Amino acid sequence: MKSVRVNASRKYDVSIGAGLLNEIPSVLASLCKKGKLLVVTDDTVDRLYADRVLAALNERGFEANKFVFPHGEQNKTLATFSNILDTLADCGFTRTDGIVALGGGVTGDVAGFAAATYMRGIYYAQVPTTLLAGIDSSVGGKTAVDLAGGKNLMGAFHQPVAVIFDTDTLKTLPKEYIQDGLGEGLKYAALCGGELMEIMESGLNEKNFERFLELCVSCKRDIVEADERESGVRRLLNLGHTLGHALEKVSDFSISHGKAVADGMMRITEIAVKNKLLSADDGERMLSLCKKYGMKIHAEYPTEALLEPIKSDKKRAGDKLHLVIPRGIGKCETLTVAQQDWRTFFCGD
Amino acid sequence: MKSVRVNASRKYDVSIGAGLLNEIPSVLASLCKKGKLLVVTDDTVDRLYADRVLAALNERGFEANKFVFPHGEQNKTLATFSNILDTLADCGFTRTDGIVALGGGVTGDVAGFAAATYMRGIYYAQVPTTLLAGIDSSVGGKTAVDLAGGKNLMGAFHQPVAVIFDTDTLKTLPKEYIQDGLGEGLKYAALCGGELMEIMESGLNEKNFERFLELCVSCKRDIVEADERESGVRRLLNLGHTLGHALEKVSDFSISHGKAVADGMMRITEIAVKNKLLSADDGERMLSLCKKYGMKIHAEYPTEALLEPIKSDKKRAGDKLHLVIPRGIGKCETLTVAQQDWRTFFCGD
Repeated sequence: MKSVRVNASRKYDVSIGAGLLNEIPSVLASLCKKGKLLVVTDDTVDRLYADRVLAALNERGFEANKFVFPHGEQNKTLATFSNILDTLADCGFTRTDGIVALGGGVTGDVAGFAAATYMRGIYYAQVPTTLLAGIDSSVGGKTAVDLAGGKNLMGAFHQPVAVIFDTDTLKTLPKEYIQDGLGEGLKYAALCGGELMEIMESGLNEKNFERFLELCVSCKRDIVEADERESGVRRLLNLGHTLGHALEKVSDFSISHGKAVADGMMRITEIAVKNKLLSADDGERMLSLCKKYGMKIHAEYPTEALLEPIKSDKKRAGDKLHLVIPRGIGKCETLTVAQQDWRTFFCGD
Repeated sequence: MKSVRVNASRKYDVSIGAGLLNEIPSVLASLCKKGKLLVVTDDTVDRLYADRVLAALNERGFEANKFVFPHGEQNKTLATFSNILDTLADCGFTRTDGIVALGGGVTGDVAGFAAATYMRGIYYAQVPTTLLAGIDSSVGGKTAVDLAGGKNLMGAFHQPVAVIFDTDTLKTLPKEYIQDGLGEGLKYAALCGGELMEIMESGLNEKNFERFLELCVSCKRDIVEADERESGVRRLLNLGHTLGHALEKVSDFSISHGKAVADGMMRITEIAVKNKLLSADDGERMLSLCKKYGMKIHAEYPTEALLEPIKSDKKRAGDKLHLVIPRGIGKCETLTVAQQDWRTFFCGD
């Protein structure tokens, strides 16, 4: 088992290892008053793990119930969120009760936002069951739901009391979801370089996989600790995300988040080389690594077609865009690009 | 003009004085980037002040629009809140744009919650137009909407960048709303005693009114600074609120918030005297002051009838209730009362 300590406005541990679902009750009992718990999960994860988690929590003396919603990003809505809040109210939850977010990124985001806002904030634990949630969305306290106008437009910063990542849950995860998580893994390799880059270049295997997870989480932890509320360096975590989000949007979300991020990262790498911000060698090394893990640029969506959806990007500030640019392996920087320069910068014309 | 500095997680000034609506553009221009602004207001305040505020903001170089919703607590809902968020998204608001909450407590709460959650937090200014909002709800960063299960069950802590309280707006305020605000004023007198108690006992008049407002805001400021997120001393601000909220609920909100709080404060004063926690003299002094300002205990709702709705009070922690008890003029304390003792404590049997 690996453990990564996060020193944010609330301090907490990310535990990573096989069989950790069994440890949820003891972890929570050591941190919180044994009161009510709402296990929030989607229908897929419900079938696999929810009852086991509920039984263990109730056996330990918590009063645990579950809230199940249909899986998928299309359900990361105000409706799901408000149904959770109404359930908490109906069950008489008070400020010392809490939530367990059991599932992938959608579950963590919406359950976390419910925890952030019920009675102005109750505690919650993240129990990620996907690679993407385990190395990315469950760490750092970002919570959100989608609006008609865009993804994650409504949300809050609210740190969990614990992140418990049972790597056994990845065994039931369809291969495409593993691929999805690897997209964020590649982002961390580009951001932090070093051992993480080397492990990914040498190839992931059973022996180095837990270490790979630990390095990804540590990379995110370092950035979150430096800038919890994304006023500066945390923006680096958006490497690949500006073009990636736009790609998700124009493809009507047929391209998954992690693959879209990897695609966005590959595009911005090429753009950085073209704009002489990154050496051709480093650019090639990063593009090769992405291809090694099955990532690609979706040529059916030319970068030109991504400029319009970028206008609704959250990272936009007025008519300026804070763009994350790779300047070397393990070295990225934010560059501010004004709207009138987007075409030249992105498309070179 | 008076100015009270609040040193919370964000530092800001509460400005109190005649004609301050005219100062909104210059205050905001000194604090924020001149971008988009959404002036959120209800239909009543819209008719009186919104266009004047909008024109002044646009003249100063902001791009200001308004969002108007029907007045009343019954509209402090998820629907109003989500309509504001959709409007922000539709108008392309980014993280450097902001909200002006122009109105009473309902407007401040729902507009503040929108600012707290749009893109995980944008800036907002409180421009209270009622006595209650000016001395209480606009200061301290509490934002919320109501759920079917209870008032303020969904919300966030989010400090404004400025509070601008134009006392001229009180001239258009119906007398019953002034009464409503005085209920909270009496609470501050009980909490802080001293000059505020003396001014209220001597009688409010044109000459001492601005000083009265300043003392109320300073009293709240001191408590908020000591405990921004209500984990301890901020609970004192709930003096009169446990029974008051219950009274609002059982009366189906026919008793206004301030009057309900004053009623709750009068009841808890009597209960404190009966339980020998407060001297009969101090109790009598506080009850007299409340009566001087037209407050009363609504005998048609006996305290016994308030115990059931207390169960859904946010201050409840598990089966314990954190109750604010007057121990003297300007001296209140939190007392924890377990559910099995409520009847004896509140009703003396």
